[in-house]
This record gives sequence, structure tokens and C-alpha cells, in this order.
Amino acid sequence: MSTEPSPRPLSAFPVRMTHLTRWSDNDMYGHLNNAKYYELFDTTINTWIAEHTGGDFAHKAVIGVVAESACRFHSELSFPGYVTVGLRVQRLGNSSVVYEIGIFDGERPDPTLTAAATGRWVHVYIDRTAKSTVPIPEDLRGPLGELEAQSQA
Amino acid sequence: MSTEPSPRPLSAFPVRMTHLTRWSDNDMYGHLNNAKYYELFDTTINTWIAEHTGGDFAHKAVIGVVAESACRFHSELSFPGYVTVGLRVQRLGNSSVVYEIGIFDGERPDPTLTAAATGRWVHVYIDRTAKSTVPIPEDLRGPLGELEAQSQA
Amino acid sequence: MSTEPSPRPLSAFPVRMTHLTRWSDNDMYGHLNNAKYYELFDTTINTWIAEHTGGDFAHKAVIGVVAESACRFHSELSFPGYVTVGLRVQRLGNSSVVYEIGIFDGERPDPTLTAAATGRWVHVYIDRTAKSTVPIPEDLRGPLGELEAQSQA
Amino acid sequence: MSTEPSPRPLSAFPVRMTHLTRWSDNDMYGHLNNAKYYELFDTTINTWIAEHTGGDFAHKAVIGVVAESACRFHSELSFPGYVTVGLRVQRLGNSSVVYEIGIFDGERPDPTLTAAATGRWVHVYIDRTAKSTVPIPEDLRGPLGELEAQSQA
Repeated sequence: MSTEPSPRPLSAFPVRMTHLTRWSDNDMYGHLNNAKYYELFDTTINTWIAEHTGGDFAHKAVIGVVAESACRFHSELSFPGYVTVGLRVQRLGNSSVVYEIGIFDGERPDPTLTAAATGRWVHVYIDRTAKSTVPIPEDLRGPLGELEAQSQA
Repeated sequence: MSTEPSPRPLSAFPVRMTHLTRWSDNDMYGHLNNAKYYELFDTTINTWIAEHTGGDFAHKAVIGVVAESACRFHSELSFPGYVTVGLRVQRLGNSSVVYEIGIFDGERPDPTLTAAATGRWVHVYIDRTAKSTVPIPEDLRGPLGELEAQSQA
Repeated sequence: MSTEPSPRPLSAFPVRMTHLTRWSDNDMYGHLNNAKYYELFDTTINTWIAEHTGGDFAHKAVIGVVAESACRFHSELSFPGYVTVGLRVQRLGNSSVVYEIGIFDGERPDPTLTAAATGRWVHVYIDRTAKSTVPIPEDLRGPLGELEAQSQA
Repeated sequence: MSTEPSPRPLSAFPVRMTHLTRWSDNDMYGHLNNAKYYELFDTTINTWIAEHTGGDFAHKAVIGVVAESACRFHSELSFPGYVTVGLRVQRLGNSSVVYEIGIFDGERPDPTLTAAATGRWVHVYIDRTAKSTVPIPEDLRGPLGELEAQSQA
């Protein structure tokens, strides 16, 4: 008797981004290596942030650092082929945000397809020089608030 | 008020392995990218398995696949330099094992140093062809049982 | 006075494939790490091979192994954004093939855009068990011959 | 009739650094993926630079960027296990340096062992802001000159 939640369908994720898998994503067992899922989480979250606030991460004074990440693996994925990554906001705090990510097989999966993997990702915002926790920057808080609302619809 | 457990000291981990960090481990923020911690978990666990049962992963009929992984990041690590990875068995089941991993700064850290990151890793053993869950192979169960006992000492 | 050839335009590459860059592609200097270009070469070549001969690399008896690779870097690329990889056949031998690869900035670059990086890639075909050199398999030789002809047009 | 030079023995490389291979270094074919060799080149060169000039790459005003890299693969290497990377200076210019790298199987290989892979690496020094070519910084030129002399001994 498991209390594990069932994987969500793609339709539960307001943001979706398609990634071409890479030869080096597969490991010796011929499927995507688990660490690569985290690269896909990171890429999807930061590409979405770049689309809303600009992508000049190298020069931002306030940055999001990963405080916690996790992934449950439901079914295999492998190179060659596309995967689609879905993104939701699970909880938006003052200085942190919790994302939920779903990874789906294929370039344009059916909205009813359930996730092959489910991720959790906690970004905490810090002042890059002082290394102290700060509120999420305003230019990001707006889009995050909208994504949070869409995620609960 | 957090219920988050405090990071453990190195002395709590019976198995320890030292890794040279790589230029490519650092990301744009000049510290180890979060996905790289999972590569270090994977490497430490599988190198330990190879030392006890042989390392010919490509031809094993029964393999451990990652059902779940997670990491909490307590403090930064960065290239250049060494990190030491500690390994414990948290729970040994019939067909699965839960590892706890600690990542520590330095080549030979003091045993009292607390972890810079804490990982959780669930391996489930499957028959590679049938893709069905099977018991942990006997040649691995022995060493895992010993590591579990050492982890609770 | 350099004898270095000028980077080719995208139009010189008959095969083109678009890749989403990843957060982890950037290194500390905020641009694509040089090793990542080789991952893009590998992915483009093998995805093209999979499209023409099937992608079940794990079970092929004859495989292409990299005997030599090289890259000249003309201008920076960086995450976030897309890159387009162009592929040509430079020389098709009995048991080996030399590819030339161009990496271009953007999702759908203008055909006159010159490459940001130029790669060279030598695949030698071997019998996976015997580890001896063998002729390129027939199902791949056909498409390679066509690509060679298109590359010289 | 090949004009290809034979791989050098470890004894030809004045600088040597041992790396633990990682699970994710192996690809689907169960051997080190070619792009990983470049990560080992990069790591060895930059760790050596850090040992001689300090490792705060993120804040240096003058940086070495890769203008060209190449590798010839002589024999397979694979996880699990150690590899030893040897480093020589092939040519030291005013604003650029050409390294030759050898990758050897094992943690402490015999000095007569020949390289499993041979790399070439060209670093050009630039002003990070102006992006213009500049002379190699003095604190690095000294150690590079010594390494060049040792490489020709």
C-alpha cells in the first residue's frame, strides 16, 4: 500500500518545453542516466526564467540557488528521440519557489500522457555577493505568480 | 521551525571515496552544478558495488535501476579541489536498497566535518530482459548487509 | 599568414539539426564548454544514423567507434538559446567515414551564416565482439553515399 | 603507410594527475565517451594552472579560451577504475600555448605504458571584457616555461 502520488498527465503542466536527447544522455544500460533528468529540470526552469526576465545569468546580482532537488523515475526514456518537460509552480514563497517538473516521452506528447519521471526543485534566492537570502526579484515574482495560478487551475 | 535533520559528520559514513572535481562540474555561478552531485552519488555507489561483486555492469542479467534520488544542498563546493563522498545503507529490503550519501569538502576531511550535501538514492533490482523486480543478487546482498550493520553502529 | 580554412556557411551542410542548449552546457566563463561541442557532434551524427538505420545502438553487432575527433572554435555560443548543427561527409572509406560538422548560432539560422565552430569526426566500424575493423554495414553505406554526394554538390 | 605518430609513454609527460572515472563517463558501448576525454584534458590543465597561479577562475581579468582541441583514441578505457592524465607543453607562444595530453589506464601506471588517447589543446589568452588577444599573464608564463623545458628534456 503506497502513498506515492500517481504521475500527473502533461495537461497538468502549464509550461512545456521540448528537448532533443543526446547520445551522452544514455548510460551503460541504454537509457537516460538519472543525473541527466536534473539537467533537463535546470534547463527548463532557467530557459523559462530567461524568457521572462532575460538570460544574462552571469551578471545578475540576485540568483536562485538549488536548495533541494528530487526525482521519482516511473518509466524509462532513451536517446535517440525527443522528451517534453512540463513545469508547474507548487509553492511560491517570499524568497523561495518550489517547482514540480514532469518529463514525458516524445516531441509533442498527447496531453493525457502521464509523466515518465516527476521532479521537485527548490530555488532559494540569494544576494550573490553577501550570500544572504533575499526576496525573489520583482521581475521574476510576477511571472511566477501567474504560473502558480495556472498550475492550480 | 524546521524538522529538517542536521547534516551528518563524515564519521557517520562507513564507506568513503575521494573524487577529483572537474572543470565542467562548475556551472556559471562558479560552484558545482547540482546534477553533478548525482554523478558523484552514482559513481561512489557503483564503484563500491564493483569492488565487491565485479564491475562488468554491461553484462549483468540483474541490474539496479534508480527508482528515486534526492539531494539537499547545505553549502557550496567548487572546482578546483577534491571532494570526499561518504556512503551508508539506510534501509536494505528484499529487492531494493536505500543509500544515504554525504558529500564533504576536501581530499581527507576531518571526521567531524559535516556534509556539504546530503543525498538519498533508491536502487531497485530488476531482471534486465523481463524488466521485472527481482531480489537483490546474493553476491551483493552480503556486502550490503555488512554495510547496513556498520551504518547503524 | 594562416592556412586555416575559413568557416563554412550553413548552406554547405546538407543535414541540419536544431538543439536546445542546456544550463549545464555553459561553464564558469558563461559560454558553452568545449567538451559539449563534441556531445553535439555525437548526437547529431547518431541521431542521423538512427533515422536511416534504426536507433537500437545497444544491440548492434557492428558499431562505429570514434578514432579521432577535433574542433576549431571561431566564436562563442551560450545557453540559453538554440544551436543548429550541420553535417557533411568529407570522406567515405570502406570501414571508416570522416564527417565535418558546423555549429551555428540560433534555431533557424540564415543559410549564409558562418559556423561558430567546425568539427572533424572519424568513425571506424568494428565488430563489437571481435573488436576487429569491418566494412561499414550496408544499411548505413547507402545513406552515407548519398550524403557524401550532397556534400560535394 | 601512416604518418601518424606513435602514442608516447607516460614518462614523456612531466605533469601527471590521477582521476577517478565516473559511472556517467561510460556511454552505451560501455567505454568512456569521447567527449569525456576533453573534460579530463580541461580538468588536468586547469587544475595544474590553479596549483601555480590560484584557482579563482571566476574573477580573472585575463582568461585562456580554447581555440582548438583534438583527440586520437588508441585503445578503450572504461569505468570503474582510475585513469592517469599526463601533460606536456608542445609550444609556448606569446599569447597562446599548445598542450599535448596523454591519457593512461590505471591509478599509478608503469612509466613505459603508452597512452590510450592523445590530445592536443590550444589555449589563447584574452582580456575577458575587451575579448581581445593579450599576452599570457606573467604568473602563468613562468611555470609554463618550466613545463616546456621539462617537456623537451
